[in-house]
Amino acid sequence: MDPQGCVVGVLGGGQLGRMFGEAASRLNVTVRFLDVGEHTPAKQITSVPASLEGPRHVDGSFADRAKIHELASQVDVLTVEIEHVDADELQAVLDHGLVRAVHPAPATIRLIQDKYAQKVHLQAHDVPVVESVAIDNNESMHAAVRAAADKFQLPLMLKSRTQAYDGKGNYILRSMDDMDAAISALGGGTRPLYAEKWAPFSQEIAVMVVRSVDGHVASYPAVETVHEHSICHSVYAPLRSQTPELAERARAIAEKAVATFTGAGIFGVEMFLMPDGTILLNEIAPRPHNSGHYTMDACETSQFENHLRAILGLPLGSTALKVPSAAMLNLLGLADLSRDPDALVKTLAPAVRSLHVPGTTVHLYGKSGCRPGRKLGHINVVGQSDAQVHERMDALLEELRLAQEAAQSTASWDAEAALARTQRTSDTSAKSARDFSHPQALVGIIMGSDSDLPVMMPAAQTLKEMDVPFELTIVSAHRTPDRMRDYARSAPARGVRVIIAGAGGAAHLPGMVAAQTPVPVIGVPVKGSTLDGVDSLHSIVQMPRGVPVATVAINNSMNAALLAVRILGTGIPSYLTKMQAYMDSMEQGVLHKVERLARDAWDY
Amino acid sequence: MDPQGCVVGVLGGGQLGRMFGEAASRLNVTVRFLDVGEHTPAKQITSVPASLEGPRHVDGSFADRAKIHELASQVDVLTVEIEHVDADELQAVLDHGLVRAVHPAPATIRLIQDKYAQKVHLQAHDVPVVESVAIDNNESMHAAVRAAADKFQLPLMLKSRTQAYDGKGNYILRSMDDMDAAISALGGGTRPLYAEKWAPFSQEIAVMVVRSVDGHVASYPAVETVHEHSICHSVYAPLRSQTPELAERARAIAEKAVATFTGAGIFGVEMFLMPDGTILLNEIAPRPHNSGHYTMDACETSQFENHLRAILGLPLGSTALKVPSAAMLNLLGLADLSRDPDALVKTLAPAVRSLHVPGTTVHLYGKSGCRPGRKLGHINVVGQSDAQVHERMDALLEELRLAQEAAQSTASWDAEAALARTQRTSDTSAKSARDFSHPQALVGIIMGSDSDLPVMMPAAQTLKEMDVPFELTIVSAHRTPDRMRDYARSAPARGVRVIIAGAGGAAHLPGMVAAQTPVPVIGVPVKGSTLDGVDSLHSIVQMPRGVPVATVAINNSMNAALLAVRILGTGIPSYLTKMQAYMDSMEQGVLHKVERLARDAWDY
Repeated sequence: MDPQGCVVGVLGGGQLGRMFGEAASRLNVTVRFLDVGEHTPAKQITSVPASLEGPRHVDGSFADRAKIHELASQVDVLTVEIEHVDADELQAVLDHGLVRAVHPAPATIRLIQDKYAQKVHLQAHDVPVVESVAIDNNESMHAAVRAAADKFQLPLMLKSRTQAYDGKGNYILRSMDDMDAAISALGGGTRPLYAEKWAPFSQEIAVMVVRSVDGHVASYPAVETVHEHSICHSVYAPLRSQTPELAERARAIAEKAVATFTGAGIFGVEMFLMPDGTILLNEIAPRPHNSGHYTMDACETSQFENHLRAILGLPLGSTALKVPSAAMLNLLGLADLSRDPDALVKTLAPAVRSLHVPGTTVHLYGKSGCRPGRKLGHINVVGQSDAQVHERMDALLEELRLAQEAAQSTASWDAEAALARTQRTSDTSAKSARDFSHPQALVGIIMGSDSDLPVMMPAAQTLKEMDVPFELTIVSAHRTPDRMRDYARSAPARGVRVIIAGAGGAAHLPGMVAAQTPVPVIGVPVKGSTLDGVDSLHSIVQMPRGVPVATVAINNSMNAALLAVRILGTGIPSYLTKMQAYMDSMEQGVLHKVERLARDAWDY
Repeated sequence: MDPQGCVVGVLGGGQLGRMFGEAASRLNVTVRFLDVGEHTPAKQITSVPASLEGPRHVDGSFADRAKIHELASQVDVLTVEIEHVDADELQAVLDHGLVRAVHPAPATIRLIQDKYAQKVHLQAHDVPVVESVAIDNNESMHAAVRAAADKFQLPLMLKSRTQAYDGKGNYILRSMDDMDAAISALGGGTRPLYAEKWAPFSQEIAVMVVRSVDGHVASYPAVETVHEHSICHSVYAPLRSQTPELAERARAIAEKAVATFTGAGIFGVEMFLMPDGTILLNEIAPRPHNSGHYTMDACETSQFENHLRAILGLPLGSTALKVPSAAMLNLLGLADLSRDPDALVKTLAPAVRSLHVPGTTVHLYGKSGCRPGRKLGHINVVGQSDAQVHERMDALLEELRLAQEAAQSTASWDAEAALARTQRTSDTSAKSARDFSHPQALVGIIMGSDSDLPVMMPAAQTLKEMDVPFELTIVSAHRTPDRMRDYARSAPARGVRVIIAGAGGAAHLPGMVAAQTPVPVIGVPVKGSTLDGVDSLHSIVQMPRGVPVATVAINNSMNAALLAVRILGTGIPSYLTKMQAYMDSMEQGVLHKVERLARDAWDY
């Protein structure tokens, strides 16, 4: 892209570097990696033109000052794929003018490396974090831990301030009797520690934030992250919640946090959602992050391209989702290859299964060997709805569960059984409707009373037949106004795209729901004992300017469901196709009757 | 992916190989390329593990039999990125058991290489093609051309049977006086020719088809291709048309054609849409194709990954679009670097501009040098609607036009002016509404008569304010039933997602339109001179089961438009955000009146 041929150097050459290199290749930007070996994941697929002087990449440790110096002398801009680097040396090569820039700034890397300093910094900038105190290792460490336990109570989270990742360097102190074991596990007093108040979060949230050279920040959608044994297991995007503004609040906190740092690049911000609805920032990674891998297949610009753009001073790319829903599943080593010859085949089982599941993309990292917990790749999943993404993920999770079981027993992997499983995976888009409370409902059917149920049942039946995931419940405008408000307000955040509301008589429900949600509301006038339902009809349809209700015929909830399918079809093409097929079958049904009427005897 | 480590060999190592290698790297599949030089586009970014014997890639011509033999001896499966290869040698290495498979089959490659034989083959399988005759170069070529001209009339398309691509090897014979020039331009009688009936097509269509080892075929969506000087210039997906079933017809023809061949892999099928609505197959490429580059960022599985899956016998990936709309712009060399030092910077100008345009992804091929027409890269564009994709493309096309002008005059490239242009490119999603006939309308506003216009104008005004591209026209159920039918039936194929229909009295229009289209129809009851509009309301809302009309209040076309925005918001999140903002501003407006009422004096 840059005709002057700006060259980027990266400390570290693992999978993050590999995917960064992939993004750079697309823009013809040359990247040189510093890592041990000639065939690290990143070096495997990232070329350095022969026209450039020196070796293609640098072979050595990113902790080796001489090697950092060597890399710096060959590139224009330095960045990192890991934060546990020598920030002083990065500052030195910058000060000596060996490179034009280091991103993020060495000071930012230094600050983030020390998790306690990171928290103090964030707290000083009014970013909500878990309360913590330093465990000073100059004094008696035991006394300091005791003081922390007095302050925060047990269980107490003890953490290494530095060199901690994927749960390594954390110890949960549940009893003061375990103090020796804790201190011993965390370096035996040789490494600086800090203590954190126990944070029994209800959910984990992450947001990727990209920061430009001039300090502008842009965030990706908030996502739900699922960890197992403190390692990222899976990610769901966008974040769904009962709380309407939760996702925006998480983004605002993440943006605010990243704005306090210096230097450009992408940052991964991990947060806790507490049971009271508050969000606490857990920690920040100053680099591409596992929770942002979904962006490669689901967003207008991937986290890797945006990191590249940021550090080169190019305009930041759009962080918007380009698909309605996405997920990511990590492929973590399930066993050690030296003990289990099927370790790799078990670990990759979900990837093999994914070849049969639409909307999935496998990203393998080219790592040799296999050991438990090692990140060997990931699978991105996209779909037209949360329900579709979850069904696609379910097939992968089923395979993962079986592979985990096999790995635990070091049983050999039954390839034939795996093949049989893949063969029963068809396109999952066609079987989303379950019962009356699908966890990823696209349509909500509500009515003021269970007495409306007979009228509203055809809507449920029709949605089921058309494979639309829906929920059905009672919401009364006049008897449960708060519940109605919560239901309406939370609909978009929960992923509900259309609401069907049935009501009779004064029939306020559809209009009052429409007044409190931006999603389309379909009103079904329910016929009461007087006035033939005209009262309901007029109450529902004659809405004032500004708040429309899509009104259907009196008692015709089936048409409400068909209208919902048409509406969903504007965003999900398969529903449009289904509606056309439904109309064609209606036509055939009538033509069949025409034929019968002409053929059979009838009285006149 | 494959633990046995199946290695793929590719004849040719250009941009198609590069993007194929990218897909293979994600699945840890090793690819070796045969091409001249160490740094072809494909070799640059495709690694070969050090553990494999022999050189990384093969340096030599893909026309060199010895080199093909050398590559074959190092790989398990052979494929091609270009069809002008030695099919006999491919058959020989297969027969000698040097490789497990060659895909597509050498016989398929041989058949497709000869464009006339390809046409005869397709015609024999009932695939519609342009009529043609061979020009036998054993007899008098002049006599054969004269006979062809007698048969097909002038202008006559003369084509080389072999070695033809991007318009090379074609000659349009407009006068019999040009016969000598034509024959001379096409090899002077040394190369076999054929003559084709002139096909004055109205549009060009392409479909990518992937064929599995067991002969199953799956097609990608039909797209519109735009050629300039016989080279692919841009692509728009999905194909839009006035004809409801055109896209499916094109896919069916493409699938039928590819099903006639043997061997696995992806095929690019180029077709002509004739003015009478028929589709004629123009030609087929037995490999990834320029018209399928959009799949990399717009489909659930890219053409390159599907080619890999097909030739390895893995399950085919989903060919569905994962975004509502997409486009592709080629970056073709605009000048020769040896004559114009700014040749490269001009050629890449649209790519630089694209960094400011959301939803764009640049793919550069790492080619050195620059000469006119050379494919240096492409830009993929995705968006939530055709209108958004076209606006995003417009920014790139504007830059391309300026760069082309500069290249023609060999003027130097004004970088500052280019920068100023990029700065005025903001997110284009927010300015789609133009006049009453937006070429990529998402909403159609129709009414039975211009007398309904005063009632329907607020709908147009509201859509304009909410930045929704729309069209507005008169369609009468009772006076123009055929026009109504055509309007309703063509709506989905044209990209219209919602129809707003206003009608008074017997008010049949909304219901009759809904009966003939699967898209949601919003009915606006127009108040007539009698019955206060209740007649219209009941006529519109009381639809029979099976065909819903979303009815709004009498004369309230503004609410119809707001409902349309809510409906579009189910697929396009930015409209959901806009609707929420609109509701918030309504609330503020009323609260402001509350304040004024409390503050100001008023009579009671």
